[in-house]
Amino acid sequence: MNFDERLKSYYASLPIAGEELKEAMLYSLFGGGKRVRPMLFFTVLEDLGYIGAADFYFAAAMESIHTYSLIHDDLPAMDDDDFRRGRPSNHRQFSEAIAILAGDGLLNQAAELAAEGASIEPRGGLLAMRYLFRAAGTTGMVDGQILDIRIGASSGDELIYRKKTGALLGACFAMAGALAEREEAFCDRLFHVGETLGLSYQFQDDLFDLEEDGVEADRSYFTEKAERYTADCLETLRTLGAFARTEALIEKILNRKR
Amino acid sequence: MNFDERLKSYYASLPIAGEELKEAMLYSLFGGGKRVRPMLFFTVLEDLGYIGAADFYFAAAMESIHTYSLIHDDLPAMDDDDFRRGRPSNHRQFSEAIAILAGDGLLNQAAELAAEGASIEPRGGLLAMRYLFRAAGTTGMVDGQILDIRIGASSGDELIYRKKTGALLGACFAMAGALAEREEAFCDRLFHVGETLGLSYQFQDDLFDLEEDGVEADRSYFTEKAERYTADCLETLRTLGAFARTEALIEKILNRKR
Repeated sequence: MNFDERLKSYYASLPIAGEELKEAMLYSLFGGGKRVRPMLFFTVLEDLGYIGAADFYFAAAMESIHTYSLIHDDLPAMDDDDFRRGRPSNHRQFSEAIAILAGDGLLNQAAELAAEGASIEPRGGLLAMRYLFRAAGTTGMVDGQILDIRIGASSGDELIYRKKTGALLGACFAMAGALAEREEAFCDRLFHVGETLGLSYQFQDDLFDLEEDGVEADRSYFTEKAERYTADCLETLRTLGAFARTEALIEKILNRKR
Repeated sequence: MNFDERLKSYYASLPIAGEELKEAMLYSLFGGGKRVRPMLFFTVLEDLGYIGAADFYFAAAMESIHTYSLIHDDLPAMDDDDFRRGRPSNHRQFSEAIAILAGDGLLNQAAELAAEGASIEPRGGLLAMRYLFRAAGTTGMVDGQILDIRIGASSGDELIYRKKTGALLGACFAMAGALAEREEAFCDRLFHVGETLGLSYQFQDDLFDLEEDGVEADRSYFTEKAERYTADCLETLRTLGAFARTEALIEKILNRKR
C-alpha cells in the first residue's frame, strides 16, 4: 500500500460514531493535497538509511496537522475562503461546526498517530513528536495565524512565513533526523534546511503573484529573499552529508513553474 | 509551587509572538475551573505510590484539553454560549478567530506537554499519552460533540456523556496507572472507574436540573442511572487495591450539593 491508501484505510477504520465527522476529515485529507511534507520526510529518511516501521505514523501526523490548519484557516471567522483546491472549503461543504470539529479531530488524531509512532520507535520518536508540536503549536503555526489575521495580508512577511510554512517543513526534516536517531544538534540543522526551503517557496509564490498581476515594481525584494533562502537551504544540506535524493527533490520543488 | 502556579508560569513563559493568543489561552485556563481532573489524577498517583517528575506535564495536558474543548464548544457555530463560569466566554471576550486559535493552541500545547512528560517517563508516558488523545479525539470528546450538535439537546444521552465527560475522566485515572507503570489491563480498569464516575456525575447534574425546574416526572430514570454508575465506579475501584484517598475524593464529588 502506498502512503495515500494507508492513510485512507487508517482514518476509515477509526470507530467514530458521528459519520459526518469522519466524512469531513476524509474530504479534506483527500482533497488534492500534493503530499509535499510526507514526500520530503520519506526522502530524507531514505537518504539517512532509516529502516523501520514508524515512518507512516509521523507522515500521517504531519499531513493531518497540515490539513487541520487549512480547514481552520478557511473558516468564516478567519480567512473566510469558500474554495480550497477548486472544491468548496470544508465549512461550505459541511457546516462551520463540523469544520471546526473536523479540524480538532485531525489535530487530536495527529497526536495519537505520533504517540503510536513513538511507541514503535521510543528513542527517536519522542524527539520527533516534540519537533512536530512545537512547529504546529503556540510558537509555530498557531502563532503565525494569529499574526496573519492581525495584519490582514501576510504577503512578504518573513516572520509569518517562518511560523506558518517554515516551521512544519522544518519539522518534517528534523523528524526524519530524530527517527534515524541522529543527534539533536544535527536534527536542528535539518530543521534549518526545511525552514529555509519553506521561506524560499513562499517568496517564490509572491513573485508568481506579481508576475500574474503584471506588477512591475518591488520584484527585487522577493527575488533576493528567494535566492538567499534557496542558497542557505542547499548549502546547509550539503554540510550535513550525502543527501542526493533530498537535494534533487528540493530542486524540483524550487524550480517549479506555478 | 502548586499546580496552578506552575501551570501559569509554564504558559506565561512560552515564546509566543501574538500576545493576544497567550492572553486568550490564560483567560480561559484561569477562568475559575475547579481542576477536578488534575486533582483526581494526582490523588490516584498518590494512592499508587508514584514518585516522579512527569505528573505535572500530564496534568497540565489534561487541563489544557479540557479548556480547549470548552472554548470551542462555546463558539457561535457550536453551542453559542456568551458566558462561561460567570464571565464572557472566550470568543465574546476576544473574537471568534482568537477563540478558535486559542483552542487550537491549547490542544497543540497539550500534545507538547504530553511529549515532555513522556520524555521524562518514557515507559509509562507513551501509554498515558495514548489514553489521553484517544479520550480527547475522534473516538472520544470530538465525536461526542458531533453527536451533541446533531441531537441539539444532549440531556440524558448516555453515549454523549460517555464520550464528552466519561472519556477524559477515564483517561485521568488510566494515565495515573500508566505513569505508575501498572499493566495495561489494570489501567483499563482504572479507566472504567473514571468513566463511570463521569457518567454518574452527569446523571446527577440532570437530576439537579429537574429539581431546580420543579419538574416532577421522569426523575427515576436519572436516579437509577446515577446510582448504578456510582456503585459500578466504587465497586470497580475496590477490586483494584487500596485507594483510600481516591475513594474519599470520589465520594466528595458524588455527594456534592449543586
